[in-house]
Amino acid sequence: MLKNDTLIRALLRQPTPYTPIWIMRQAGRYLPEYNDTRARAGSFMQLCTRPDLCTEVTLQPLARFKLDAAILFSDILTIPDAMGLGLHFVEGEGPRFERPVHSEADIARLHPPDPDRELRYVMDAVWQIRRALKNELPLIGFSGSPFTLACYMVEGGASADFRTLKTLLYSRPDLLHRILDVNCRAVTAYLASQIEAGVQVVMLFDTWGGTLSAAAYREFSLAYMQRVIEALAGYRGVPKIVFTKGGGLWLDDIAAIGCDAVGLDWTMDIGEARRRTGSRVALQGNLDPAVLFASPETIRAEARRVLAAYGKGPGHVFNLGHGISQFTDPERVAALVDGVHELSREFH
Amino acid sequence: MLKNDTLIRALLRQPTPYTPIWIMRQAGRYLPEYNDTRARAGSFMQLCTRPDLCTEVTLQPLARFKLDAAILFSDILTIPDAMGLGLHFVEGEGPRFERPVHSEADIARLHPPDPDRELRYVMDAVWQIRRALKNELPLIGFSGSPFTLACYMVEGGASADFRTLKTLLYSRPDLLHRILDVNCRAVTAYLASQIEAGVQVVMLFDTWGGTLSAAAYREFSLAYMQRVIEALAGYRGVPKIVFTKGGGLWLDDIAAIGCDAVGLDWTMDIGEARRRTGSRVALQGNLDPAVLFASPETIRAEARRVLAAYGKGPGHVFNLGHGISQFTDPERVAALVDGVHELSREFH
Repeated sequence: MLKNDTLIRALLRQPTPYTPIWIMRQAGRYLPEYNDTRARAGSFMQLCTRPDLCTEVTLQPLARFKLDAAILFSDILTIPDAMGLGLHFVEGEGPRFERPVHSEADIARLHPPDPDRELRYVMDAVWQIRRALKNELPLIGFSGSPFTLACYMVEGGASADFRTLKTLLYSRPDLLHRILDVNCRAVTAYLASQIEAGVQVVMLFDTWGGTLSAAAYREFSLAYMQRVIEALAGYRGVPKIVFTKGGGLWLDDIAAIGCDAVGLDWTMDIGEARRRTGSRVALQGNLDPAVLFASPETIRAEARRVLAAYGKGPGHVFNLGHGISQFTDPERVAALVDGVHELSREFH
Repeated sequence: MLKNDTLIRALLRQPTPYTPIWIMRQAGRYLPEYNDTRARAGSFMQLCTRPDLCTEVTLQPLARFKLDAAILFSDILTIPDAMGLGLHFVEGEGPRFERPVHSEADIARLHPPDPDRELRYVMDAVWQIRRALKNELPLIGFSGSPFTLACYMVEGGASADFRTLKTLLYSRPDLLHRILDVNCRAVTAYLASQIEAGVQVVMLFDTWGGTLSAAAYREFSLAYMQRVIEALAGYRGVPKIVFTKGGGLWLDDIAAIGCDAVGLDWTMDIGEARRRTGSRVALQGNLDPAVLFASPETIRAEARRVLAAYGKGPGHVFNLGHGISQFTDPERVAALVDGVHELSREFH
């Protein structure tokens, strides 16, 4: 069905003629046309909740670059917003919740939203984007991980030290587990709905799991991602990617939870990651986004270094190790995408 | 000579009756008496440059807790300040340089300061602290790593993405290498002077090496720390500790540069770290500083978990995995220090 199914094949570790590439946050602020649409929408949340504009910005990078996938334009915090926490964005400070979860009573009130009702705008966007894509490319859906959602829900926003969250974790682990249980059910239902609406790959973004100790990561982040992945196992043809920023140390554990692919940030040598995971999972990554500030020649050289580190054979999806910086020159992205397509052929 | 040489013995992997403990940033803002002294000094830099006040704050935590070491009170950025970059501190924003290094001409002008002249105030503090300690406890000296100093020198302060530094790294690596060469010589001379003035252990703080890719870390951070450690090899009785925050993935490489001990942040299981490094180095760490927000019982349980993960035998120095938070209750620190002393006996 798909005209370009390279991504799907790579995620399932099947042979491909070249290494597919997509870019985390590929529809984003480094693109002038994205900023125009966002300005038209008013606020970021107005952009997220309008399926027509989500479709527009999802397609923008595909018009510029020969990417091998589209990714649903949305935010990782739509779920807690649908739980009634009141998501808004403060310029230069990132996401904020008006009503963070503080007390035991707040936690008791939490319920997983019904994705087809309270997150209907996301499903409408998925449906519209799929129509617009005309089976040219696969569409990736995603969610924040249960733990990462909990971080924002408890802190009320991003944090340098996650003091509130960690105080809860070490003082009342039972309460944090209650939040995580709700989040786990919510994420599962949300991703299932996205799949039913048409996404062809799903990805869990665990942005903050890497701030935990090894033991706390297993108990409070990985265990819940495993539950999500296991609950989605019935969707056999839909590859599942798990990405914990800063999770390289725990790669073996992550690779064992039943996901098809593991996303890597740029701190880990992808060759070593491959040796450690064997043929259990595909690997996605992992160029330092800062490489895109360099010349096209350097970008090609660094991209080749990642390709060569992974080595010959299937199972590699090229990506940055983190979202693309808003300060990136789009011309450099073209150099990367074309470079990966061209340079990767010798490894297949 | 030293009445309590437990730290030195543990760093050299010799038997000790219990696991010694000190705490990164143990003389700091969580202590009311520290805040009093700092207020008296005026600014943070005035505090750092007055040997009498440095001595006072260095000793403050020792009066409260049965710590096994003192650490020189100073800042990791004294070297670039002595290079003329103009260090100052902006409330709530951390360190800033008035004259960051931007152009090729700026870089050409850089020279390692003479520590006994331009950093004389540090050596005077070392000398005064040693006198005040009366050989009760060892004194740890330290420096920022060549790469971490370069981060601040190029960015002009802390940064979320180190965009300026990384642009230089990927666009003009030759220029970054020139800065790092100057820093390397400066750090070596600075630590040698600290040792001559009386410090009995030295530690390199590589706060930002963990933001690099594996290949860039080896080339731009680790290689220069190795040069520093090798240049100090003649100081045989002075153990050398290297700490890269976020460096767990590269532990094997770090352990091979000739240092006596490796500091670990809290993300790595210290038992796994020990298995990977064998008997090559001692390990220092690695409790999540956020554990100190929990109850004394939880603090003891989590401390025991770290002790048990390391296991029986010598070579472990207990510490947090990062500097203590300013929001820590000093009573909790007492619970940790006493807990480690008591609970660690069964492992020796």
